Amino acid sequence: MARNTQVTADHNAPGITQILAKYVATHPSKGWSDAVDHEAHRTFMNWLGCAVGAAHHEAADAALAAVNMLQPAPQASVLGRTEKVDMVSAALINGITSHTFDFDDTHLKTIIHPAGPVASAVLAMAEHLGSHVDETLRVSGREVIDALVIGIDVSCRVGNAMYPDHYDRGWHITGSTGTLGAAAACARLLKLDVQQTAMALGIAASQPIGMREQFGTMTKPFHPGGAARAGLMSALLASKGFTASPKALEAPRGMMQTVSTKNDWHEITHELGERFEISFNSYKPFACGIVIHPSIDACAQLRLQGVTPEQIDRIELKVHSLVLELTGKKEPQDGLQAKFSVYHGCAAGLTFGYAAEDEFSSAVVTRPDMVALRRKVLATVDDSIDEASADVTAVLLDGRRVHVFVEHAIGSLKNPMSDTQLEAKFQGMSDAILGAGRTSDLINACWGIGNAANVKALVALAVPERK
Amino acid sequence: MARNTQVTADHNAPGITQILAKYVATHPSKGWSDAVDHEAHRTFMNWLGCAVGAAHHEAADAALAAVNMLQPAPQASVLGRTEKVDMVSAALINGITSHTFDFDDTHLKTIIHPAGPVASAVLAMAEHLGSHVDETLRVSGREVIDALVIGIDVSCRVGNAMYPDHYDRGWHITGSTGTLGAAAACARLLKLDVQQTAMALGIAASQPIGMREQFGTMTKPFHPGGAARAGLMSALLASKGFTASPKALEAPRGMMQTVSTKNDWHEITHELGERFEISFNSYKPFACGIVIHPSIDACAQLRLQGVTPEQIDRIELKVHSLVLELTGKKEPQDGLQAKFSVYHGCAAGLTFGYAAEDEFSSAVVTRPDMVALRRKVLATVDDSIDEASADVTAVLLDGRRVHVFVEHAIGSLKNPMSDTQLEAKFQGMSDAILGAGRTSDLINACWGIGNAANVKALVALAVPERK
Repeated sequence: MARNTQVTADHNAPGITQILAKYVATHPSKGWSDAVDHEAHRTFMNWLGCAVGAAHHEAADAALAAVNMLQPAPQASVLGRTEKVDMVSAALINGITSHTFDFDDTHLKTIIHPAGPVASAVLAMAEHLGSHVDETLRVSGREVIDALVIGIDVSCRVGNAMYPDHYDRGWHITGSTGTLGAAAACARLLKLDVQQTAMALGIAASQPIGMREQFGTMTKPFHPGGAARAGLMSALLASKGFTASPKALEAPRGMMQTVSTKNDWHEITHELGERFEISFNSYKPFACGIVIHPSIDACAQLRLQGVTPEQIDRIELKVHSLVLELTGKKEPQDGLQAKFSVYHGCAAGLTFGYAAEDEFSSAVVTRPDMVALRRKVLATVDDSIDEASADVTAVLLDGRRVHVFVEHAIGSLKNPMSDTQLEAKFQGMSDAILGAGRTSDLINACWGIGNAANVKALVALAVPERK
Repeated sequence: MARNTQVTADHNAPGITQILAKYVATHPSKGWSDAVDHEAHRTFMNWLGCAVGAAHHEAADAALAAVNMLQPAPQASVLGRTEKVDMVSAALINGITSHTFDFDDTHLKTIIHPAGPVASAVLAMAEHLGSHVDETLRVSGREVIDALVIGIDVSCRVGNAMYPDHYDRGWHITGSTGTLGAAAACARLLKLDVQQTAMALGIAASQPIGMREQFGTMTKPFHPGGAARAGLMSALLASKGFTASPKALEAPRGMMQTVSTKNDWHEITHELGERFEISFNSYKPFACGIVIHPSIDACAQLRLQGVTPEQIDRIELKVHSLVLELTGKKEPQDGLQAKFSVYHGCAAGLTFGYAAEDEFSSAVVTRPDMVALRRKVLATVDDSIDEASADVTAVLLDGRRVHVFVEHAIGSLKNPMSDTQLEAKFQGMSDAILGAGRTSDLINACWGIGNAANVKALVALAVPERK
């Protein structure tokens, strides 16, 4: 009992739990620039499109079937479907679907996917409380965006402090920090005071979720869903007087020191309330690992220059060694394998001009023209090229050479997707689920959510029309 | 991305997830001795008494109020109360109450409190499924005991493998291993096959719950409750086809290597299905930290020998230094402080002959006779005395000296509480909640649960009579 292996324990950590609680509870509404607020709307829309798009994935079916064993009250909508479930279960399922395609947002500094845990909790709670009999509990669209910015700030700042040790150790940092972000956002929605908010963060601190071993299974998207559920419930518990340690995040045997050997507290306190991590959020144009993106982008640019698959003798691809190490699968047999094939990425980029979930489907991956085109990609390693870049030369049957160099792929922070491109991505996921007209209205509702009286109209558009 | 700080990662771990899944799914019903089966009944009864006893604690009120925000379906009972909630919420609340008094069972090798996560999940699921329209889902009392033995075996074996590093690092091992135990037990109740059971364990592996920093707050008992909920839900998800890594426990970035640097796989596989960790479960006779128990026991023995508080000049107490280090509070001001006062423990032992939750209430702690008697306790350190022992001499006003040495306190593995003593402990917690008659019937129902067609009659007795 006198053992203590925490020889490196930091007993002098600043009061992170209290500092964050004060920030969450008292930062002014829209206490940031218009640019930050617009990024929050982009984050929200991208998250919503991903959730709608995967609404009928088998992971969603399985999660909903399990939740239905609880006979849930119809409090909040399963996005992209007609079912309603209680708000924690809606947070769970929408968190799962938003990450199922691995197509959601990325905070590049920590590779956290921040919207999944936070937005899934926020929208489910806002939908239910929006029409609550207790008027003081009702939630406006403005409060939703405020909660999203602040919740994502909490999870990404905690992530900044612990990354990379925490991730290297085996934690899927999206879920492990996401519980805190979701708790912060829901505490804000519930208008908890500083002490109650500290309790919400404290309860959440005991529930980090997610191991990297789960990558490639449904439990990977379960992580943001589970984090959303745990965070929402933590805020509800705190609102009813449930207690936790007021130093639950930073104490030697609190969450952060238990799950990470690196904890740079400064990352949490520096410019808190002045710099917002949601500013650094990015959105994937392509439904695959980020290292393939420059190559897809380059081949899509070849297509824009008039190069067609029929003209190709070979495609000479030069990339950093890491790209082939992670995504060097030459002959992918199905959609999942293709997500780890830069060869398929190039073929899709040249053929379609993009590579969303459909272009990574097994049906497309096994098409004879795709197989043939993949085999014409000759990849070589050149470590003088950054891992975020790609150098592509199409050598045509007539002998011509067309060269494209992509320094910063579309979707990176240096070359972000435009609002129009985000809308097109949304349509690509939502049109088939909700129909083009409804999708268009939903996109407009997303852009206007910060000014909406509540989320009712938006949520009504995010589910299929009842016949 | 090429970083890897897991220099000590074990890439050659045996297939723990599959091995445990096969055990959980295929071990024969009552595939153990009568003694093991009887211990399971004792574990179940002790857990149930603790849960009933704390039914109206403010932690229970707060948790129930939060759960009620979800408008839960009345599937399963909150023990000791009239409310019903959905089965995962019942698992949560009953898990909280069973650990609120810190009076539940202890697996001494790991200091896991094993019943909280497992029994709370099992009984809630059994109550709801017991009357399910789908007959194949119905659960007998025998299956409840089977699930309890097997679930506790899973969590304690995982605990054996990781202890003490995992605990020293900051994890509350009851919650972090309890999720796995609860998932195993519920998978068994749902009659999942080996592969589905592996998925249930895998989903649960992403959800270890509990930091030691929370000790002294409501979030400590939240840990077994949260573990019960997470484990039950993991089994439901697996039953509907949700997937996880088949190596989620043992892989380099699976749960165990992520949350512990010590992993002795042999502890999991050795004598699996032959030796059952529930055999080594112990039950606290006194509602406080285990190091005070020998001193209370010794003073209770003085009382049995006819010594009364009025006769006392002084009590000479000799104990290991650790006892005073952890529980050396001389003048406790309230019930919580008294739990860390060996002085109060001695006074209670001599005055009442035991020290349950009531004897640690603020009302008793502040009584003038208790204050006076505590001040007559003179404690000295003697490290030749084991920390599990106590040497007490009552020096009476007439000059007589009465000596008691307790080598193994009542409640330890060497000197377990008898069935009659466990019943008395149960009555002490339950009589005030359910009434003496109902409590007596409930005790009989606990002893008979292994032969009951379902849990219906037992659960009906575990809630107050409806007027």
